[in-house]
Amino acid sequence: MNFLNEVADEFPSAISFAAGRPTDQFFDRLNGGALLDAFARYERHARVAHPQSKERSSLLQYGRTAGIIGHLVVQQLATDEDVHATSDRLIMTSGCQEALALCLPTLCPDRRDVALACNPTYIGFTCAAQAGGVDVVPLSTKIADIAEAIDRSVSQLRRDGRRARVLYLIPNFDNPTGRMLDEGHRKDILDICRRSRIVVLEDNAYGMFQYDGETIRSMSALDQGECVIHLSTFSKTVAPAVRVGTLVLPESLFGDCEARKSLWHQLVQRKSYLTLNTSQITQAIVGGLLLQENGSLKEWIRPAVDWYRHNRDVMLRQLEQVFAPICDQIGWNRPSGGFFVALDVPFRFDADAVTDCATKYGIIVMPMSFFAFDESQDQRIRLAFSWVDPERIRIGIEALGHFVASRIKSVQEVQTTCNIF
Amino acid sequence: MNFLNEVADEFPSAISFAAGRPTDQFFDRLNGGALLDAFARYERHARVAHPQSKERSSLLQYGRTAGIIGHLVVQQLATDEDVHATSDRLIMTSGCQEALALCLPTLCPDRRDVALACNPTYIGFTCAAQAGGVDVVPLSTKIADIAEAIDRSVSQLRRDGRRARVLYLIPNFDNPTGRMLDEGHRKDILDICRRSRIVVLEDNAYGMFQYDGETIRSMSALDQGECVIHLSTFSKTVAPAVRVGTLVLPESLFGDCEARKSLWHQLVQRKSYLTLNTSQITQAIVGGLLLQENGSLKEWIRPAVDWYRHNRDVMLRQLEQVFAPICDQIGWNRPSGGFFVALDVPFRFDADAVTDCATKYGIIVMPMSFFAFDESQDQRIRLAFSWVDPERIRIGIEALGHFVASRIKSVQEVQTTCNIF
Repeated sequence: MNFLNEVADEFPSAISFAAGRPTDQFFDRLNGGALLDAFARYERHARVAHPQSKERSSLLQYGRTAGIIGHLVVQQLATDEDVHATSDRLIMTSGCQEALALCLPTLCPDRRDVALACNPTYIGFTCAAQAGGVDVVPLSTKIADIAEAIDRSVSQLRRDGRRARVLYLIPNFDNPTGRMLDEGHRKDILDICRRSRIVVLEDNAYGMFQYDGETIRSMSALDQGECVIHLSTFSKTVAPAVRVGTLVLPESLFGDCEARKSLWHQLVQRKSYLTLNTSQITQAIVGGLLLQENGSLKEWIRPAVDWYRHNRDVMLRQLEQVFAPICDQIGWNRPSGGFFVALDVPFRFDADAVTDCATKYGIIVMPMSFFAFDESQDQRIRLAFSWVDPERIRIGIEALGHFVASRIKSVQEVQTTCNIF
Repeated sequence: MNFLNEVADEFPSAISFAAGRPTDQFFDRLNGGALLDAFARYERHARVAHPQSKERSSLLQYGRTAGIIGHLVVQQLATDEDVHATSDRLIMTSGCQEALALCLPTLCPDRRDVALACNPTYIGFTCAAQAGGVDVVPLSTKIADIAEAIDRSVSQLRRDGRRARVLYLIPNFDNPTGRMLDEGHRKDILDICRRSRIVVLEDNAYGMFQYDGETIRSMSALDQGECVIHLSTFSKTVAPAVRVGTLVLPESLFGDCEARKSLWHQLVQRKSYLTLNTSQITQAIVGGLLLQENGSLKEWIRPAVDWYRHNRDVMLRQLEQVFAPICDQIGWNRPSGGFFVALDVPFRFDADAVTDCATKYGIIVMPMSFFAFDESQDQRIRLAFSWVDPERIRIGIEALGHFVASRIKSVQEVQTTCNIF
């Protein structure tokens, strides 16, 4: 959320592993001239597509609520993300955040309806739910298997007279944990969701940022068009400032095509109530870039992907080196993509610890508890490697090592002291 | 609302008085090169203001939720609209629609809270209220004086265990009626709102489009900083596609500065839940244009103002000419600004009438009932003169004359027939 982005501004000299922003390294490719090129390219394309209209003017006017570049995004989603959309199932949104703000109250209209989410989960989701007046129920952290945890939640909710209508999930390189779900787990989750008539909001912000390992099909591709709404954003592939995202509905809702059409209209209506339509200027910029890149952003993001991969490798190597002496007390995952590593520490990492890190060790990191519904994440840290350069990753992780060592030492001292008395 | 904009697309050859869009006539001044110039101008300005930061990059990043061009908008509001803001009371929004979507649920958090509005009122307001789960209570059309109608509503609501928290008002050239409130009425409304602790949402979308007559101070300027939130938009002055609007809080809320600060934070928080932040690309375009125009858009919009004035004159002259033979049965106002004229007819103007007008007479007009809470507006029509050129206004009003004459004739025939039997 924005707090994550603003925290970095408060300690300008500290090394920040807090902000899950995309790197600024390659934004030079989108200088003013390039923005204009993209805009003009889309304008020419629109003029050819609609030779009768004064297209330049109409790009600056109010526009279609569902957006104007859906046909280009359909092509990109198919090529890049194995998501097979049609324009009539797609809505262009003002970033993925607006997609969440549209879906949650629309899918959970009754006060007894709830949305399910992993614990921890992306804050933008819980905030959108809060703004939309939708209760979120976290899946139990005591059940490792998500499908099983969903099944348990569904039964419990039913006993309480409530109903799970939505599951929010980032299957590829989760924010905040970096976790990737394998195909078997995805299929199990789809099975239970279809059985329980739960719509899966698949947030695929990081799907195109895979650095190695096997690619796993999106939930949307595995679903056969029944229960997955696919959310994506151009914030990471193009730039956050375009504020352009996309939601794609499945072909049907649990087999009912009319229900899907009705949902599309409800979402479009709500969008017109919130923001009328997404800026046609920034849609045209994204559209022009898609035209320039022949419908795929894979080549466009390659330099960034290479940079993130290197950053991840540097972070993982440095974690290994720094924490080798205490590797029995510290753990972390090795994500094959995305922006985040999750670190487990043997002490409570809270707001005080954040301040301690920033002031004494010159680093900013995010407590995992910030994304959690309970105390289960109190001894975890989210480390973002997307926005720091490699040299600062090395220095920052070394500083983190000193901080962790000092905390472990003081925990041990307290324990020793306790043992004395 | 978007329906207004999309209706025009359904009957492409008809003359549309339905769409309250700004004219496309002067959008050529904002071709690609001009957009780039504006963006680059803001970028240079930001670089001078913050020499340390890589400003080009950061413009493309996630950004401050409340926006980045507030300091320029403060200057423009003071110069152009007599609204005296400070940056810390201002939030940049994704069009005025988002400002409504932020304010309504935040100011009416309790289910007993209601928002007051004139009847008829702008649809974007009622829709934002609906999306935010806020009930709207229309002021009585039987009481001509708005302040008195507010007083009556406040008492009635109190008896019902409910409470008016917000009044939505377009004091300058109301959409849909074109009405302008005089200073006495504005002051009376402010008095009753302050006494009843009602926040006035002053929507000033049309304030800069005055064609003649005396200028009246904004509610915000008359208020002395206690109860007016001023909403404005760059959709009419620059272009709808920038999707940039502004809300300005008063200095205090009913004398309480801390309450205003708290409200600002709540609104910013809700904005981060809906859209994170407004596109920095389109903010930079607006900012660059403000810099180019030395902080005032008055000169920039002068050609449009002249064009709208001429259109209004053509429409009023043609109404007089066409309806001269039946002027005892038809009435309309003569607005000194804005985009709209309200026409009173001696028959019910409903959905059937819209279809009749479009198919048989080649014109599209909006029933005023579309903006109403009850049947009080059933014999009225909203005519927008902002988006049609003068020649088509002449032809369209003449066609409207034929339609009206035919309807009056058939009403008389029915009456005659009834008299026979």
